[in-house]
Amino acid sequence: MPVNPPSLQTPLHVPGFRIGTASCGVKSPKDKGKRTDLMLLSCEAGAHAAGVFTQNRMRAACVALGENTLVNSAANIRAVIANAGNANAGVGDMERQWAQELIDAAAGAAGVAAEHVLSASTGVIGTPFPIDRIREGMQDAAGNLSPDGWEQAANAIRTTDTFAKYASRKVGDYTITGICKGSGMIHPNMATMLAFIATDAPLHAETLQPMLKRAANRSFNCISVDGDTSTNDTLYLLSSGLDLGYEGLDADQAGAFEEELTALCIDLAQMIVHDGEGVSKFVTIEVGGAASEEDARKVGRSIAISPLVKTAFAGSDANWGRILSAIGNSGIEVNQNSVGLKADDVTILESGNLHAGYADADGMAVFAKDEFTLHVDLGMGDFSSTVWTGDLTHEYIVINAEYRT
Amino acid sequence: MPVNPPSLQTPLHVPGFRIGTASCGVKSPKDKGKRTDLMLLSCEAGAHAAGVFTQNRMRAACVALGENTLVNSAANIRAVIANAGNANAGVGDMERQWAQELIDAAAGAAGVAAEHVLSASTGVIGTPFPIDRIREGMQDAAGNLSPDGWEQAANAIRTTDTFAKYASRKVGDYTITGICKGSGMIHPNMATMLAFIATDAPLHAETLQPMLKRAANRSFNCISVDGDTSTNDTLYLLSSGLDLGYEGLDADQAGAFEEELTALCIDLAQMIVHDGEGVSKFVTIEVGGAASEEDARKVGRSIAISPLVKTAFAGSDANWGRILSAIGNSGIEVNQNSVGLKADDVTILESGNLHAGYADADGMAVFAKDEFTLHVDLGMGDFSSTVWTGDLTHEYIVINAEYRT
Repeated sequence: MPVNPPSLQTPLHVPGFRIGTASCGVKSPKDKGKRTDLMLLSCEAGAHAAGVFTQNRMRAACVALGENTLVNSAANIRAVIANAGNANAGVGDMERQWAQELIDAAAGAAGVAAEHVLSASTGVIGTPFPIDRIREGMQDAAGNLSPDGWEQAANAIRTTDTFAKYASRKVGDYTITGICKGSGMIHPNMATMLAFIATDAPLHAETLQPMLKRAANRSFNCISVDGDTSTNDTLYLLSSGLDLGYEGLDADQAGAFEEELTALCIDLAQMIVHDGEGVSKFVTIEVGGAASEEDARKVGRSIAISPLVKTAFAGSDANWGRILSAIGNSGIEVNQNSVGLKADDVTILESGNLHAGYADADGMAVFAKDEFTLHVDLGMGDFSSTVWTGDLTHEYIVINAEYRT
Repeated sequence: MPVNPPSLQTPLHVPGFRIGTASCGVKSPKDKGKRTDLMLLSCEAGAHAAGVFTQNRMRAACVALGENTLVNSAANIRAVIANAGNANAGVGDMERQWAQELIDAAAGAAGVAAEHVLSASTGVIGTPFPIDRIREGMQDAAGNLSPDGWEQAANAIRTTDTFAKYASRKVGDYTITGICKGSGMIHPNMATMLAFIATDAPLHAETLQPMLKRAANRSFNCISVDGDTSTNDTLYLLSSGLDLGYEGLDADQAGAFEEELTALCIDLAQMIVHDGEGVSKFVTIEVGGAASEEDARKVGRSIAISPLVKTAFAGSDANWGRILSAIGNSGIEVNQNSVGLKADDVTILESGNLHAGYADADGMAVFAKDEFTLHVDLGMGDFSSTVWTGDLTHEYIVINAEYRT
């Protein structure tokens, strides 16, 4: 069960994009017809694209191929193909060939050249990729392409997700719509997460790429469910505007676009935490007073991935000593005597000392809530960062101990 | 419940050392008389000493004091005082004073100068240190000093440990005896672990220090229960031999001593894994084919701390894709096409490909055992390292969600 999932608005059309889905039985032939597991995003007129990928050194072939395609064709992408049910990762020599065949099949069905197609796969690692079953479904996906397909697409890429994740935002006359999937293995550095964002705001690939990287650093890279990162994480941003003949954005407009893009990425990233495997609490960790934004993020992540902190969340135990210890484990220089800590509006520590008015019962009352915010003040500078995470529950273990059964 | 705890031999006397214990009610006055929680190790004639400490930047005052004492008096240590029940950490301005008062009280009871006394504390973080109750117990500990006190000492330093941990080894005529405590928060880089090792082998502090560091790197720093490291971890090694007038060891003898010291540290470290909080399996991870020993250790640790791998262990699920992913997350350069993986004698991967003869049922049979070994071959070089870990179970969460209640 997700914790407080947000109520979602129907995603908005984005001029230049159509989406189709299909049921291929990727994970097992008996799933065919029961759930969709293939998504084809078509932008026949072309789109500029940017991508952010997993930092895991064991990268699936689709990641390597996508990175390569962006090097050569970032200004001319025609389709994105994605499947759930099988990650096509850790399968050895055939992996690259299967990944290429997935792209070839999508290119054929969409009537575009394979070098303009990006791909992504998610699901079980280490199981042969059922390319034949996917080929059979490809024509179905190409046959139901529609500007309305976003919600269906968000469903098609789900694995252990309990709800489909999508969001839209407007920037002036332009639209941004994104979908994503992810629930387990979620961690900073892009872990088993797929996200596809489309916009008609006219921006060149060279502008989109650094913008997407910054947005990811403040959103998807700020969430943590269990600290593991996957082999397949992929975030693509596509923009149809220039190919639709729109006049390019000026610097102010681009800045406004980046703000909305970042906000949309945060919307999507938070949905992943709300749907974290076995998560029963949604915790925001605001770290301030850092010497750099990166330092602040490191402290936030260190708190967010600590199993001792996460089990304390699960137990509604305001065991702030574990939070202090996690700050100390973050790898940055910290001054024990300058650290401040609040849980919502309850002050626990000031300058490294227990606040005179702090009563354990007050802290416990905050930790008992299903959503609360920790405020950490490092007292070392002016930079800050926010990280979102969940707790570590028995349910997480049940889900992950029995994932393949 | 521990998993397959080893059956232990009564620890051996070490000439030059006597130990006393006391029940102070450190954690709560109502524990007084029910369990011991103070250990005084006396070496009146003097000892050479070495120490290895937590890497957490939030270090308890006892760690900072101990490091300082070793700088000035490593060749002349007279006592070690340790308590369980309260870590005297994260308590603010009073922490350093309380840590000093603990040392002063021990020095007074042992009749030695405070600058020759080392200390260590373990237990709850962030709770005022009950120095008065400890002072009351100090005379009891000094009053029952005995060369036989090792097992009692191992009991006195327990927190969530389910059994007392001690071991002895002989090197020629010399003896090494060590005790340790630790069960939760256990991780490479010395996490909530205390260990005290004494020997009469005549070695100078300057020789002991690098030797202890190497031994720790191959033992205590190779275990992982949950990936968290604590504020108080401390390992002390004391040698009485030179002060007893023994002739110093030559290089060969010192080498033989280091070998036994390392083996003893491994014995103790493995006991901590056997007693890991909620652990139901004992897993050995042997990483070979690495470009350096440090690379091998990083890969072993990355596998050992991955919650997805640890829950797969708990679920007896041979989900080797998660192991591959954890290798990729270790931070070292890896070549996907050169990785080999075995579980006990079952070959799973060879050169990045699934072994032709591998059957999932064979892998599952190994993962179902309560002790097994993963063999990872990185295919990049000739270095290796071994890491020991447990699984991540519901029980771990119960223990840690309710630790303070």
